[in-house]
Amino acid sequence: MTPDRKDNDQPMTDFNRTRSLFHLPEGVIYLDGNSLGPLPLVARERVARLLCEEWGEMLIRGWNDAGWMTQPARIGDRIGRLIGAAPGTVVMGDTLSIKVYQAVAAALEMRPERRVILSDYGNFPSDLYMADGLIRSLGRGHEIRTVAPEAVGGALDESVAVLLLTEVDYRTGRRHDMARLTRAAHAAGALTVWDLAHSAGALPIDLAGAGADFAVGCTYKFLNGGPGAPAFIYVSPEHIGRVRPALSGWLGHEAPFAFDLDYRSGPGIERMRVGTPPIIAFAALDAALDVWDEASIHDVRARSMALGDRFITEVEQRCPGLELVSPRSAEDRGSQVSFRFEHAYPAMQALIDRGVIGDFRAPDIMRFGIAPLYLDADDMVRAAETLGDIVAHGRWDGPRYREQRAVT
Amino acid sequence: MTPDRKDNDQPMTDFNRTRSLFHLPEGVIYLDGNSLGPLPLVARERVARLLCEEWGEMLIRGWNDAGWMTQPARIGDRIGRLIGAAPGTVVMGDTLSIKVYQAVAAALEMRPERRVILSDYGNFPSDLYMADGLIRSLGRGHEIRTVAPEAVGGALDESVAVLLLTEVDYRTGRRHDMARLTRAAHAAGALTVWDLAHSAGALPIDLAGAGADFAVGCTYKFLNGGPGAPAFIYVSPEHIGRVRPALSGWLGHEAPFAFDLDYRSGPGIERMRVGTPPIIAFAALDAALDVWDEASIHDVRARSMALGDRFITEVEQRCPGLELVSPRSAEDRGSQVSFRFEHAYPAMQALIDRGVIGDFRAPDIMRFGIAPLYLDADDMVRAAETLGDIVAHGRWDGPRYREQRAVT
Repeated sequence: MTPDRKDNDQPMTDFNRTRSLFHLPEGVIYLDGNSLGPLPLVARERVARLLCEEWGEMLIRGWNDAGWMTQPARIGDRIGRLIGAAPGTVVMGDTLSIKVYQAVAAALEMRPERRVILSDYGNFPSDLYMADGLIRSLGRGHEIRTVAPEAVGGALDESVAVLLLTEVDYRTGRRHDMARLTRAAHAAGALTVWDLAHSAGALPIDLAGAGADFAVGCTYKFLNGGPGAPAFIYVSPEHIGRVRPALSGWLGHEAPFAFDLDYRSGPGIERMRVGTPPIIAFAALDAALDVWDEASIHDVRARSMALGDRFITEVEQRCPGLELVSPRSAEDRGSQVSFRFEHAYPAMQALIDRGVIGDFRAPDIMRFGIAPLYLDADDMVRAAETLGDIVAHGRWDGPRYREQRAVT
Repeated sequence: MTPDRKDNDQPMTDFNRTRSLFHLPEGVIYLDGNSLGPLPLVARERVARLLCEEWGEMLIRGWNDAGWMTQPARIGDRIGRLIGAAPGTVVMGDTLSIKVYQAVAAALEMRPERRVILSDYGNFPSDLYMADGLIRSLGRGHEIRTVAPEAVGGALDESVAVLLLTEVDYRTGRRHDMARLTRAAHAAGALTVWDLAHSAGALPIDLAGAGADFAVGCTYKFLNGGPGAPAFIYVSPEHIGRVRPALSGWLGHEAPFAFDLDYRSGPGIERMRVGTPPIIAFAALDAALDVWDEASIHDVRARSMALGDRFITEVEQRCPGLELVSPRSAEDRGSQVSFRFEHAYPAMQALIDRGVIGDFRAPDIMRFGIAPLYLDADDMVRAAETLGDIVAHGRWDGPRYREQRAVT
């Protein structure tokens, strides 16, 4: 497990090895791991074992004997190592939207005299929807103030209770400076809720070092936990003892199995648990996290920046009609590259038909995830060649390229 | 699929056949399916297929091409058939605690002038905890009034906004009369939220016929969906158009993939969706529901009543020190039988060690789930014999029988 903690410049990660740990369909270059990571091979066997040996044989005893009950904390700690969170400060469960709700609700209660949730137009809409639902329920005149990403720092004032941001923009890949904005928020007396959906497993994060108050994230993107894999929440150890859980479920209770009629929250991060944990999903996620025993997030980041730069160069050489909407500087990007293109939707469909899977974001964005655990420079070149051919020759004919379908 | 809809007295369900559909460990009599149902054999293959053929090969395209996105509604309709809910009125996701929160929040908003949530001491604590967390957040002087189960009808008055009840008591198995209490609640101007955790898959439920407003439930008990399987929520078609989702996540949005910054709820039950659905867990649950294509819930109920009666008779013959705390009349019980016993904890541990798995509820309850899909009269007799031997001879020696451990 040493690769996580390296501090020199020598890459210690064998990316041929990490690539071999995933199933990638024949002939596919997968540039959508920022939506749904691919299947880690070991997940098949791990889930089968969970079903047959644990659920099948242990039945109800699995909660104790197979450690099911402690998985939210144990897996939370595994993710904590990737995001700069100390043991006991991250717990798993529910979905990212639910975790946003919990974090924002807790933060608002800690700033009772303030009424503004500050966010930006690049935030993932569900984060804003959840905050909106919360403040409507509260009915105390809170408002969500949404500004341009670059205007966030300047919009922090003493009305702001919570700064709610996604570190890496889901469309453009633009990356916020977490440490700087957290400092600025604190200077203004506000708390921070960082959404790490497009960060966790993509780049080094230092929640403790940045002084982040709350953070949330999903695990089906760069952490490869599978479709609908459970979410995580981090609460700063400085705050956790004072957080009143808005979603006060039994598994956040101090003694869930006492079945008291009155709620008393558990002492630490476990109070952010709500209901019965999703054990089958945890088996896949836990297996997916094994790759981090052999990979350094620092190496992954370095390779992601190089691959992203290479992809931009290769695409721009071939496709002058595509406009880069991601930051050109790799430092300012997450692990994706996005282009604006008039025919983005049909061109992406044509590209997918030729085995290069990226995705489309309305109205005109072609989005490409760069996941170094299973992608290399050759993939970048071949993807750009295919895209170049499609764009140069307008190869998107037929009705299926005109109908927009839902993709996450 | 006809067995669900039978209306004569001839059993149409082949219980030898249904039993063959489950994995039951050698030598085990499993009387804890009211906590966690056993593994349906077909779930192994179905989950493996989801991993390899869908996630592995389709990758992100699974959301459309494998129908992942529509599973919350499709599986909801499968469960709807077992609980008297019309198609399009049940949707899957999250945990039961989260679904309780959604239902109570919606109901309170529909009765803005009232301040009381009425429940009973037999309700599952997490339901009360979630309601408590909600009303603390609202901060508008709501209160939870908790009375004895038999006093619920008399406690309904014009202060009550919501009647929040679990139909079948998780400890005693006592069953509320859903139709009568729903009528009484409506007569008092209150709305109902029914928790079907110990009902769904155990007995026929007629939500539409009873005029229930909201219902919620889990799927890992008598529906055998696996540890931590997703929950469901029902909203009466009469109300759904007026429900404002408190947990307003993107998958409840009218157009999730438009990525609008403003939330607009979907037109129907889909507005109760929150975040990305748990697809791996759905594969197991969907497989588990196949048994209902061959089993009638009416047959299951008839057999459950007979098996429960038989178990009571057999136990009482052998164990005069055990006091039945479940209703003696099968009509008034759910699908479990519970006894009070001074040495409940160590006796249950000893019983489990001898392959008869029930569970313990503090301080002194031995609880036995009766799941006719995989249990028969012979199991009842053999379980009672083993229990009788343990009780008659005080066979619970050694330290492991004195330490209480967590079980759900």
